[in-house]
Amino acid sequence: MRGVSSRLGRLAAAAVLSLGTMGAVAASPALALDGLVEKKVFEMPSYTTTGGGTIKNVRIGWESYGKLNEAKDNVILVAHFFSGTSHAAGKYKADDAAPGYWDSIVGPGKPLDTDKYFIISSDTLVNLSAKDPTVVTTGPASINPDTGKPYGMSFPVVTIRDFVNVQKALLDSLGIKSLQAVMGGSMGSLQALEWAASYPDMVKRVVAVIGGPEADPFLIGWLNLWAAPIKVDPNWNNGDYYGKAEPKAGLTEALKVVTLHARHWKWADAAFGRKWAEEGKDPRAAMNNQFAIEAWLDKAAAARAAVSDANHFLYLVKASQTFVTGNGNSLEDGLAKIKVPVLLIPSDDDLVFPPERAMRPLKERLEKQGVAVEYTDSITSTLGHLDGVANIAKAGDTITKFLAR
Amino acid sequence: MRGVSSRLGRLAAAAVLSLGTMGAVAASPALALDGLVEKKVFEMPSYTTTGGGTIKNVRIGWESYGKLNEAKDNVILVAHFFSGTSHAAGKYKADDAAPGYWDSIVGPGKPLDTDKYFIISSDTLVNLSAKDPTVVTTGPASINPDTGKPYGMSFPVVTIRDFVNVQKALLDSLGIKSLQAVMGGSMGSLQALEWAASYPDMVKRVVAVIGGPEADPFLIGWLNLWAAPIKVDPNWNNGDYYGKAEPKAGLTEALKVVTLHARHWKWADAAFGRKWAEEGKDPRAAMNNQFAIEAWLDKAAAARAAVSDANHFLYLVKASQTFVTGNGNSLEDGLAKIKVPVLLIPSDDDLVFPPERAMRPLKERLEKQGVAVEYTDSITSTLGHLDGVANIAKAGDTITKFLAR
Repeated sequence: MRGVSSRLGRLAAAAVLSLGTMGAVAASPALALDGLVEKKVFEMPSYTTTGGGTIKNVRIGWESYGKLNEAKDNVILVAHFFSGTSHAAGKYKADDAAPGYWDSIVGPGKPLDTDKYFIISSDTLVNLSAKDPTVVTTGPASINPDTGKPYGMSFPVVTIRDFVNVQKALLDSLGIKSLQAVMGGSMGSLQALEWAASYPDMVKRVVAVIGGPEADPFLIGWLNLWAAPIKVDPNWNNGDYYGKAEPKAGLTEALKVVTLHARHWKWADAAFGRKWAEEGKDPRAAMNNQFAIEAWLDKAAAARAAVSDANHFLYLVKASQTFVTGNGNSLEDGLAKIKVPVLLIPSDDDLVFPPERAMRPLKERLEKQGVAVEYTDSITSTLGHLDGVANIAKAGDTITKFLAR
Repeated sequence: MRGVSSRLGRLAAAAVLSLGTMGAVAASPALALDGLVEKKVFEMPSYTTTGGGTIKNVRIGWESYGKLNEAKDNVILVAHFFSGTSHAAGKYKADDAAPGYWDSIVGPGKPLDTDKYFIISSDTLVNLSAKDPTVVTTGPASINPDTGKPYGMSFPVVTIRDFVNVQKALLDSLGIKSLQAVMGGSMGSLQALEWAASYPDMVKRVVAVIGGPEADPFLIGWLNLWAAPIKVDPNWNNGDYYGKAEPKAGLTEALKVVTLHARHWKWADAAFGRKWAEEGKDPRAAMNNQFAIEAWLDKAAAARAAVSDANHFLYLVKASQTFVTGNGNSLEDGLAKIKVPVLLIPSDDDLVFPPERAMRPLKERLEKQGVAVEYTDSITSTLGHLDGVANIAKAGDTITKFLAR
């Protein structure tokens, strides 16, 4: 492990900003974390995937907030969403434009109370933001030590379980044997549920935000569409583009789909209305004249594309599509492994994981098998799926109480 | 005008079939239309668009069901959806695999009773299915008489109002001066509302199905994403691909987005579940192993792409994005022109025009200005937006009564 905070550049702040302000999302922490956050790196000489593939020299970035107690039993693990990173809270530098994405609930006196808990968060394998200097990940863009060249599409398929297993190895390396809770939003909630199914004796509680127990068939279809523009871009070249022209156009369009799918018409109404992108340029007057929301999507996605890797995007899509709690072929069997209390926090307007399809039936299934389930949709505002990131503080009291139960 | 039914090929049946059976959609007409349907062609030497562009030699296909009475006052105009055509009912040949898309409500004794009404439907300008031999349309793929070459992106921008104006010219040519109703689904509903705002003295009733009074900002964003894969495909070449390799990959992906967006998770659950595309090929085992829904999307979209034109797709997106009833800049002003009774038929699960955003507020606005509005969501089933095509017969009685009022 070694610190890489010296490498932290302005890109990270820009990436957070693109989420934080361009989408009318704001976090206003009442209390800041003590001191600055440092990115650390966990290394494994070799990792064998659930599918039997081997990845050598695995390197994963992680950060933590609060102090690990002597018994090492005050730990909360936070898992990140599809386009997220381990930067859940705090700032790397005092003048960072914005703190980590869930800073509103992480800090002294906040629901994830750093006076009490040691909160740890790690970058996943195949993290999307492979070019973000604050992210450390291993994936298709990494050098395969056996060839000296980037893996590209020869990188093994990875699953949500693999993300969990690498996190487990990280915790093992720190001597952590139990978790007060695993919490995550969206793809992070899949990891949280997978943790409870994979390591039931280690996890005391699950907090699953804007997610579900599996990728449902409609979401599997949507994830295919997220990825599609990358494959249409000839620069993708079956994943072999490192050192050449990259599939920037395809990646940008892919990120546009993610960006819009994760939001809602209430957001679009409030943020843009039917405004034109440029004054005097009526969209009816020329094929290239745009509406404001179109220009914004182009710009927001281009900013994200600058720090993202197209192959990593495809591998994350695959990991998300194949998710079913327990990583078997039966959701029922997977959920049966969960015994601990679960807090479910959906957004009512979520188009990615519609609660009616995802968290509502999950609540019923878990209750049927005797699990203590709490459910609150108090985060629902105008952002759809993204309410789970931007408005998580609205569920703050519920989270505080749940962690104390 | 001349008949083109001799040109009708198997493609049309295939296209209807792809909608009719692959998506678990079925229409079971109780009574068939008398005789076969014939495609006719309406021609205009020149049409000036609302934006001031000129289109010479406009040719638009149309068909009709029932008989025009002597007073020419028993007419119902049916306008089609984004990927639809004028083939609303009946068959071209006795052995066609499926009839027109709304056959379940068009025929003797049905809500659009051909014993009573003369029902007419026409292909729009820039109709998507430019390569379907049953479709006659004028758009970017047409030859510009001034250059002898296809227009490509030099074709003028067209709006929903332009579609309406060309329909008006068609009706003028037949001596039709009043309409018992204008009815349409999705993009057809936009035309129906536009008719009532543009020619208020000619239209007696409006039946708007799975649509809204404008493209809302979120839908404007989605329509941008529908189009995006075409522009990423280098074969698109800024619209200049005629006689060269066409942007087939991009067009196919674009049609995949439309196909999925127009449906719902209830459909995906029922039709596919988490089934794999091929037995023994676990999607976790290889990046190219697919789920069944992915393989179906690929196949359904490829079938549609075979009869579609990519530039026409882009022009239809533009016409849809720019729609606001009345074709001005104020929805309020546009709706104020509507005085006649309106029947609104949303699907509760519509992701393209969510009723909460589209038809619910439309109902309130129209009622506020004194319009007699009826509203029924009885078509809602499991198909989302597409319920408006597949399950329209569930609103049959409501339509019958509305047309009689």
